[in-house]
Amino acid sequence: MRRKSAALQIGGFDQVEPVYVGGGHPVVIQTMWKDRLGFADLEGKAGEAVAARIGRLKKMGCGLLRFAVPDTEAAEALGKLAAMVSLPLVADIHFDYRIALRCLDFPIAKIRINPGNIGSAGKVEAVLSKAKAKGRPIRIGVNAGSLPPDLRRLVDQGKMESARALAEAAERELVIFRQFGFSAVLVSMKASGIADTIKANRILAEREEAAAGGSSGLAENPVPPLHIGVTEAGPLIAGVTRSALALGALLAGGIGDTIRVSLSDTMENEVIAGREILRAVPEIAPFPGAPPVRGVRIVSCPRCGRHSFDTHGFTERWLPRLYSLDRDIAVAVMGCAVNGPGEARHADLGITGAGDRVLIFRYGKVIRTVGPEEADKAFAEELEGL
Amino acid sequence: MRRKSAALQIGGFDQVEPVYVGGGHPVVIQTMWKDRLGFADLEGKAGEAVAARIGRLKKMGCGLLRFAVPDTEAAEALGKLAAMVSLPLVADIHFDYRIALRCLDFPIAKIRINPGNIGSAGKVEAVLSKAKAKGRPIRIGVNAGSLPPDLRRLVDQGKMESARALAEAAERELVIFRQFGFSAVLVSMKASGIADTIKANRILAEREEAAAGGSSGLAENPVPPLHIGVTEAGPLIAGVTRSALALGALLAGGIGDTIRVSLSDTMENEVIAGREILRAVPEIAPFPGAPPVRGVRIVSCPRCGRHSFDTHGFTERWLPRLYSLDRDIAVAVMGCAVNGPGEARHADLGITGAGDRVLIFRYGKVIRTVGPEEADKAFAEELEGL
Repeated sequence: MRRKSAALQIGGFDQVEPVYVGGGHPVVIQTMWKDRLGFADLEGKAGEAVAARIGRLKKMGCGLLRFAVPDTEAAEALGKLAAMVSLPLVADIHFDYRIALRCLDFPIAKIRINPGNIGSAGKVEAVLSKAKAKGRPIRIGVNAGSLPPDLRRLVDQGKMESARALAEAAERELVIFRQFGFSAVLVSMKASGIADTIKANRILAEREEAAAGGSSGLAENPVPPLHIGVTEAGPLIAGVTRSALALGALLAGGIGDTIRVSLSDTMENEVIAGREILRAVPEIAPFPGAPPVRGVRIVSCPRCGRHSFDTHGFTERWLPRLYSLDRDIAVAVMGCAVNGPGEARHADLGITGAGDRVLIFRYGKVIRTVGPEEADKAFAEELEGL
Repeated sequence: MRRKSAALQIGGFDQVEPVYVGGGHPVVIQTMWKDRLGFADLEGKAGEAVAARIGRLKKMGCGLLRFAVPDTEAAEALGKLAAMVSLPLVADIHFDYRIALRCLDFPIAKIRINPGNIGSAGKVEAVLSKAKAKGRPIRIGVNAGSLPPDLRRLVDQGKMESARALAEAAERELVIFRQFGFSAVLVSMKASGIADTIKANRILAEREEAAAGGSSGLAENPVPPLHIGVTEAGPLIAGVTRSALALGALLAGGIGDTIRVSLSDTMENEVIAGREILRAVPEIAPFPGAPPVRGVRIVSCPRCGRHSFDTHGFTERWLPRLYSLDRDIAVAVMGCAVNGPGEARHADLGITGAGDRVLIFRYGKVIRTVGPEEADKAFAEELEGL
């Protein structure tokens, strides 16, 4: 059962497209820009390249794109970029609430603040007031590594569980937001530990649901959509493993409206990881409101001594393109003719080797045999013709 | 609760080191050689390079290394290699039982056969007879894509679930093995679907446990150790995601004595993925007999616009070395000084940037500040000195 949460619209003004989070909408995948973005990066060819990359991320399934905004200069640059692209951009702000205020002057679709370091309630209210007037949602982003000092102390003294402190920090902020009548709010509670990540989200989801009068209604206190993710998850393999286990457990329990897979790797790989998690979880825990499984599914064998086709090279070459296709198909890249077509008989399109030839097959039946040098072209034609 | 299974020794003769699978021993990670191996690959410098790579895989945590053996020539080459290294090697044989017989003439530690294609019970018995005389364990490796024809038909006609057919195929073979008094047997049932993989293993684990007289005893019918894995799991990210979810669910339920993460990627990455899964699962499902968490844990941030240190480059450069260290430590690679040392305060050693300097820290306290060009050297020294 997917937990009910309030539906929020993010974007949907100027040239920015609307994205819906919560309220049973499909889970939204997001990622974060990895480098500092200055004005110089947005001019001429450089600016076109940035916009093109964002366009490609969107095609791969990225619904929201976040940027660290460490100072006012970065806010001005992000403001400029936000007017150049249709994907809703999010400003991530720590320490200085005035940067948040400046971001709200631009078509930036959402703000993220960290209650552990943004300062007094008065500063938070200044941001809320302007965001409300502009209709911009805010995410309360709590991190286990930067809890408010009093909660940090309790955790360090062993008087409070880390997961409970995360939920407590988020709830405190929610109280302020509600006193102010600000309802366009999302919450995240991230830890580097898998168990803490799962537990913090479960605690808050239960509390908020109880406050809203049970899972059946949204009543006066709408349940805020939850942004879920594991922080400092590590390099690619460690990060994907840890995120799959943590987000898998939460999504399987109906918790999570938008996800980010944090990796010490590219944004594109974060988006692909998000897709793969959203595709895989319903296989083991189908639940109402699960995001529809969309996009190309790639079936590929690990390759062994029987292979006569370079599956790794082909997969690497074709991955970005396959992940950008808006088609619900399965594509198989198999190493050998002996097992390939049979084991991939459910694939809409497949490719494998047989001696010095390359076979292209559909549902296990070979439809074309070509030389290795024609393989990419032939595969492209058959993909096009599906 | 980790399911009890019979303990098997693999290797432990000639120069081959023993590895123990099942019976509560730590879960063994395995991978598979990705290319055909011929005699030319084993001579002179080429042979030294192959042996060195196998040595590195072992250092990273690989306990068993499998090779496809499609013909007698490949069997002869593998036999030669098996005498060159200490890691137990496994011969993977389809279709022709005579190849299995030939492999048993060499110090090859284990044989894998696929009951779906190895042929009559008489052929299986010929292999069992020789393996028994030599004291070599055998894995019954069932694949959803290559079920025995009658079971395949039942599945295709919708008369039998795929998971049940996998367990049935394994059990049929187990009956033959037992009639023959052959007990050094492991079982795997692999499917490309996560749900089928989980279900097939649960069905067999339950049946075998019941046959052995409940989970408390091993009685006359020892429960065979289970080798678990998802087949055709896909390229790196998809494969790690699917394997983490499937193996995670099984391991959390106490099922699984040896694992392989199949990836359309390198063997090294398969081993790293295995390690990361074995490290992460106990965080959410601690159980008696869980493998000890060993080796370096890498904490690294995804990097954002606040960064002043190339975490990706550093991580990529250091990964193979860190994954080869036999130390139980946490190493943090963080992007910025603002959050880095604080968020990684639990790390034994960490590195991050601050303006144009690089900081090295221990438990959140900076112990050294160097220029970027000295970063690797300084980090190596501190790592050495831990």
